[in-house]
Amino acid sequence: METHKQLTIGLFGFGVVGEGLYKVLKQTPSLKASIKKVCIKHPDKKRDAPASLFTTQKEDILQDPEINVVVEVIDDANAAFQIVSTALLNGKAVVSASKKMIAEHLPELLSLQQETGQSFLYESSACASIPVIRNLEEYYDNDLLHSIRAIVNGSTNFILTKMFEDKLDFQSALLLAQQLGFAESNPKLDVEGYDAVNKWTILLNHAYGIVSHPDEILFTGIQQVQLSDALVAKEKHWDIKLIAQAKKLNNGQVAAFVLPQFVKHDEPLSFVKNEYNGVVIESGFADKQFFYGKGAGSFPTASAVLSDIAALRYNYKYEYKKLYHHKPHDLTNDYYLKVYVSFDDWSYIPREEFEWIEEWHAEAERKYLIGVLHYSKLAGQNWWKENNTSLILTTDPIIDNLDIIKLKKKSLELAGIA
Amino acid sequence: METHKQLTIGLFGFGVVGEGLYKVLKQTPSLKASIKKVCIKHPDKKRDAPASLFTTQKEDILQDPEINVVVEVIDDANAAFQIVSTALLNGKAVVSASKKMIAEHLPELLSLQQETGQSFLYESSACASIPVIRNLEEYYDNDLLHSIRAIVNGSTNFILTKMFEDKLDFQSALLLAQQLGFAESNPKLDVEGYDAVNKWTILLNHAYGIVSHPDEILFTGIQQVQLSDALVAKEKHWDIKLIAQAKKLNNGQVAAFVLPQFVKHDEPLSFVKNEYNGVVIESGFADKQFFYGKGAGSFPTASAVLSDIAALRYNYKYEYKKLYHHKPHDLTNDYYLKVYVSFDDWSYIPREEFEWIEEWHAEAERKYLIGVLHYSKLAGQNWWKENNTSLILTTDPIIDNLDIIKLKKKSLELAGIA
Repeated sequence: METHKQLTIGLFGFGVVGEGLYKVLKQTPSLKASIKKVCIKHPDKKRDAPASLFTTQKEDILQDPEINVVVEVIDDANAAFQIVSTALLNGKAVVSASKKMIAEHLPELLSLQQETGQSFLYESSACASIPVIRNLEEYYDNDLLHSIRAIVNGSTNFILTKMFEDKLDFQSALLLAQQLGFAESNPKLDVEGYDAVNKWTILLNHAYGIVSHPDEILFTGIQQVQLSDALVAKEKHWDIKLIAQAKKLNNGQVAAFVLPQFVKHDEPLSFVKNEYNGVVIESGFADKQFFYGKGAGSFPTASAVLSDIAALRYNYKYEYKKLYHHKPHDLTNDYYLKVYVSFDDWSYIPREEFEWIEEWHAEAERKYLIGVLHYSKLAGQNWWKENNTSLILTTDPIIDNLDIIKLKKKSLELAGIA
Repeated sequence: METHKQLTIGLFGFGVVGEGLYKVLKQTPSLKASIKKVCIKHPDKKRDAPASLFTTQKEDILQDPEINVVVEVIDDANAAFQIVSTALLNGKAVVSASKKMIAEHLPELLSLQQETGQSFLYESSACASIPVIRNLEEYYDNDLLHSIRAIVNGSTNFILTKMFEDKLDFQSALLLAQQLGFAESNPKLDVEGYDAVNKWTILLNHAYGIVSHPDEILFTGIQQVQLSDALVAKEKHWDIKLIAQAKKLNNGQVAAFVLPQFVKHDEPLSFVKNEYNGVVIESGFADKQFFYGKGAGSFPTASAVLSDIAALRYNYKYEYKKLYHHKPHDLTNDYYLKVYVSFDDWSYIPREEFEWIEEWHAEAERKYLIGVLHYSKLAGQNWWKENNTSLILTTDPIIDNLDIIKLKKKSLELAGIA
């Protein structure tokens, strides 16, 4: 049955992922994939592999005509982009795990693939071991994908779980995540949502054909979430999760963001605890699907890289069919969100910016409201990130423009105002 | 980027799945796949498609050299096998949804693929919309797959959910499942586990390279499960599910069966309710993964068929790498199971067959025990299926031969016997 090509790999990076990959490939000759050369930064570090395997010269890989696959698992986004583009231009297939690099260079990377016709695979860049990119490519037809919601950052999910189930405070939970290896040593990338929005930029492309940049997507992390918010959630039988979400609106445009959100206990994403990731896809055809697995760490990442390598044997390429074969969807800024906001002092809250406010709890020390406002009152605004203010989306937060007038009227009637 | 072949499809069957597929293909010209001919049994039925599309002569498809893909979504397993084998021998790629046919003809179908070199894809045959076969093929390397546990039959899961959450009795739950279209009109196939064991036969092959036959796998359905069992489960914070399970033992052989099982509330499979399916895969590399989605019904099935068709554009074939590239694993009958058995009368229970009995509740009207016995005391035996006896596996039921003596000693010590 064998018609696969022999893969000769040049590997960039020999950290935990790179080394794990090296070991597994050695143990599975049936894969017909072997590592010829590994490019590293620090030649003096002791490594569990023959010295002849290593080089510090990237050209030893990029210019070697025998090497037909470049696998890149390094930390430096700029260097990674240079490596990936040169490799593609030199006629090599590429597997990458660098989510930041991919998210920030999406248009160039798409052009490079079209220009060179080479495979560029990066399943490990989003949700690691969960095969979400491949599933979006293969299983969901553009017009049928209603929405996608996901927990894409394991560190923040771990911290939230420890805070709200084990009653740790934020700092202790973060410290524990770092000790267990789930968080970056610079935790800002995880905690403030940068990592999540990079992954979301990548997935929006495969879900809806959206070619965007992390800067264009509304996001924050969990740095503002407070224990008092957790108490409110608990009372209402909700969890708090950092949710990446995208939904097709009635006009065919897509609302997308990464924000803390209340999640009902019977929702699949509520099941996702600790360092796990989860993705819920709703479509007209396959209905609701849920993928769950480890979203970070060396082994889950290596496992996804390995699956990309396996796919290269039959010349698998992403088709980007939402982008090239359909009319791609646009991101929109024109919709409304129903939000929960907790705060210390009324004066920090721009009440006049809300379309309407449904709940208003001012009795406790820590006050909160639930109200509806336009996307533009959050994007580019800072009031909801300052002065100890915490904003959390409600369980079903997106309100279509077409529905807003009707809903506002109903809400004001209920309140006895109209 | 396009180098795909044009797919010209001959379709067998125009029921809900076939018709859904026809509509979706018409709406997505980018797929480069069109249906040339549909073979049906009853030409007089009114159908929402041009009459010229239909034929009752299978040779109109099987002998048409222009047709390069045969999609088979009919109910008759024998006819399906004839169609599939002829199509493969005539040089056509084949997509099939007939789990019974595939499970019962696995060796012949493997030979046919090797002989003809043609693609034979059947993602929809197990768990419908959940891409479990593709993931087992692509993501899990043989030696790393510790275990796979799944809910593969939506009807029985629906019935159990209704019985234990909504307190319906078995007959009412079954009736509701039939009314909602989740159950076969002959419910025996679902309720007594035949459907599940067919799917499990297919998945065992992709998970472990096991070429087996449904008859060789220990299975039953939920026909014996009683409300009193649910009360015991509730007390212990467990659910009862019909679980298909396979686990690699210490000697490298695989234990596999389909039996009712207690499931802890924090287990992923406990989250799977109503007509949904779920699969939990544990591996050394990707760790624990959980896939969840609709496992039956026309749309989820059509969605999986569509993904197979899409994969044919780049000549995707299952590699059966666990079978051909590794040393395939054997099924073993030599292990022990820890079981719960409830019954009306002691005399029905062969107590001497148990290695030891850990719990023994004889006070209530409905009695039960929890004990350990060898696989051979269940396989081919009828005592646990007769006389209103109900057998349910405990939450972690498989005991390796190597551990049995140690565990038995410990248990007898605890009981004060040894």
